[in-house]
Amino acid sequence: MVHTGKKRTVVNFGPGPAKIPEEVLQKAQTEFLEYEHTGISVLEMSHRSPEFDGIMKETEKLLRDEMSIPNEFEVLFLQGGGSGQFAAVPMNLKFKSSSGSADYAVTGSWSAKAADEAKRYLDVNKVFTPMKPYTKIPEKSQWKFNADAAYVYYCANETVDGVEFQQPPELKYHNVPLVADISSNILSRPFDVAKHGLVFAGTQKNLGAAGLTIVIVRKDLLGHAESYTPSVLNYHENHKMNSVYNTPPVYSIYLTKLVLEWIRDKGGVHALYERNKNKSALIYDVVDDSQGFYYCPVDLSCRSNMNIPFRVGGRDGNSDLEKKFIQGAEKLDMISLKGHRSVGGIRASLYNAVSEEETRKLSEYMKEFMVTFKTEE
Amino acid sequence: MVHTGKKRTVVNFGPGPAKIPEEVLQKAQTEFLEYEHTGISVLEMSHRSPEFDGIMKETEKLLRDEMSIPNEFEVLFLQGGGSGQFAAVPMNLKFKSSSGSADYAVTGSWSAKAADEAKRYLDVNKVFTPMKPYTKIPEKSQWKFNADAAYVYYCANETVDGVEFQQPPELKYHNVPLVADISSNILSRPFDVAKHGLVFAGTQKNLGAAGLTIVIVRKDLLGHAESYTPSVLNYHENHKMNSVYNTPPVYSIYLTKLVLEWIRDKGGVHALYERNKNKSALIYDVVDDSQGFYYCPVDLSCRSNMNIPFRVGGRDGNSDLEKKFIQGAEKLDMISLKGHRSVGGIRASLYNAVSEEETRKLSEYMKEFMVTFKTEE
Repeated sequence: MVHTGKKRTVVNFGPGPAKIPEEVLQKAQTEFLEYEHTGISVLEMSHRSPEFDGIMKETEKLLRDEMSIPNEFEVLFLQGGGSGQFAAVPMNLKFKSSSGSADYAVTGSWSAKAADEAKRYLDVNKVFTPMKPYTKIPEKSQWKFNADAAYVYYCANETVDGVEFQQPPELKYHNVPLVADISSNILSRPFDVAKHGLVFAGTQKNLGAAGLTIVIVRKDLLGHAESYTPSVLNYHENHKMNSVYNTPPVYSIYLTKLVLEWIRDKGGVHALYERNKNKSALIYDVVDDSQGFYYCPVDLSCRSNMNIPFRVGGRDGNSDLEKKFIQGAEKLDMISLKGHRSVGGIRASLYNAVSEEETRKLSEYMKEFMVTFKTEE
Repeated sequence: MVHTGKKRTVVNFGPGPAKIPEEVLQKAQTEFLEYEHTGISVLEMSHRSPEFDGIMKETEKLLRDEMSIPNEFEVLFLQGGGSGQFAAVPMNLKFKSSSGSADYAVTGSWSAKAADEAKRYLDVNKVFTPMKPYTKIPEKSQWKFNADAAYVYYCANETVDGVEFQQPPELKYHNVPLVADISSNILSRPFDVAKHGLVFAGTQKNLGAAGLTIVIVRKDLLGHAESYTPSVLNYHENHKMNSVYNTPPVYSIYLTKLVLEWIRDKGGVHALYERNKNKSALIYDVVDDSQGFYYCPVDLSCRSNMNIPFRVGGRDGNSDLEKKFIQGAEKLDMISLKGHRSVGGIRASLYNAVSEEETRKLSEYMKEFMVTFKTEE
């Protein structure tokens, strides 16, 4: 018997690796030593066994169902995270451009990193001049597309900066595939895969554990990778081998399966989206009603439901107050609220696994903190 | 409370993902929901948190202690498995050769795969003509080294073919770094890291779960990667960021820490080596005393302690008997004994976590099976 103790009380607002639903962890703990009647842990299971093949097929089926992935797309289970994809995308898709270039929409630090990595492989055309700090997505009229681009790249939700596309961008050239990094908002809102040529996501935010990267790619984009593409990042090689080109992260795939079952049981992505809008409103409302005590720099048109960066004590933040804010939150068992070092201040990450009740605890704390410290501003 | 049930009775002879020590799984299960007093699971822990930094530093320290890694080597925690390293090694080390070539010793299917992948990046000189089937390592006099090779590559233990180097190969040109894939025999026997420029291992055989790749690299080899090297496979980029260039597989690192503690508590690599020799002898002795009923094709000089491939019913195997052998073993709760499809027959993988008692169960079964079926041969 294992003592699991009482229900956990810590509220984890971390940006990733992030909270995993309680029910998922409970189930994984229960079958940690033995998966179904196999006599072994999933951790010890051959990736070529029928049992693991079943887990992988079921994971793909659940993902296809919950994301409404059309049949002309393949689902790949890879390693290397989003950063691995920053290289894999240009290496695999460069063939689409006769001039060897690609379009990048830089709306935050992750798309900026992706554009930098892509420069190793092709000419990067930034479709607009990135604004710094990253607080707004320029209007479509300002985007300068390249008709010969291999693809148009964007990050659907910037985890560090809290900038989220409410819709995929409209393209000028419809033969150019759209590529999206959806690592930090996958299955947090309805998302039209069919508008894209390729989307990818690390699983450590909304889909379970670190170590697994999901790539959803249109079949016609497979099979033309540059010769220097490592096999582990070659979509076609991995697809041919049904994502067991080499040993996949079996346990991370299993956890993603459990999270997808949890999403299904919660009513799917539409129900989660309603919940996520309510959750983020709980925080944004306190910020916007605070008469400047709290300040979120992100434009109303592109505020993220998943990651909310804000300052305490005015536009530029009061570092003493921000320290007190974090310490006070930790005393109340709310952790990982520190903003990314490039942005400063506070960041509340409200992934699917964070409940409305937990979010309300933070918003109540924010109100009380303001009452106590507004005079110190 | 979680019901863990009685002690598990299944014996897992799988080649990887493979058996994890019972004590490790028990401990991981106990602290699955909450690591120490953090209130959260390791699965949910930020890779930039002090708690995870502590886990990573302790993992590196244990690895350095148990492998006696000299100070001039860096330890990196990467993703992508051995197959990722098949590309990363040439991309990072090609600079060492003015002619752009590297030496490969092909002694089995994994070094063959590594050589194939390297051809994307440089000229591959096979230091001897690979023999097929892979059953022997040619003597040193037959190795033809290239003075301008970027490195000399070998696989210390061929998981599929059961061919293991008893010592690192002696090189002719001592300025050429030696590179070893030690995925399937890491910490199963004493190993002199200092004789190498770089060694790497996936952790899913002797060090825990799939999803983590450990690279041990001499400092002077860092910083000269080819321009097309993806950052996630660039040793220098990862070293600069202390292996958190991007989100590492936090849970796999934690499990490796637990396995390293278990290795230390078992008396370290020298004690495990004695145990592993005894274990493999239990199987090889039955094979060699069977008057040809069992047949292991690997030369006595290079038989593996970790992976023992053998046929049942003569040199070429009797497929009916081999099927019965596997079915009979499964009835006795011994699983994953089927040989790799490229070799056929049976393979018993006897990694560190497989006990002498478990190995004895297999050798006793082999004797009984022979008595029952020798006439059918």
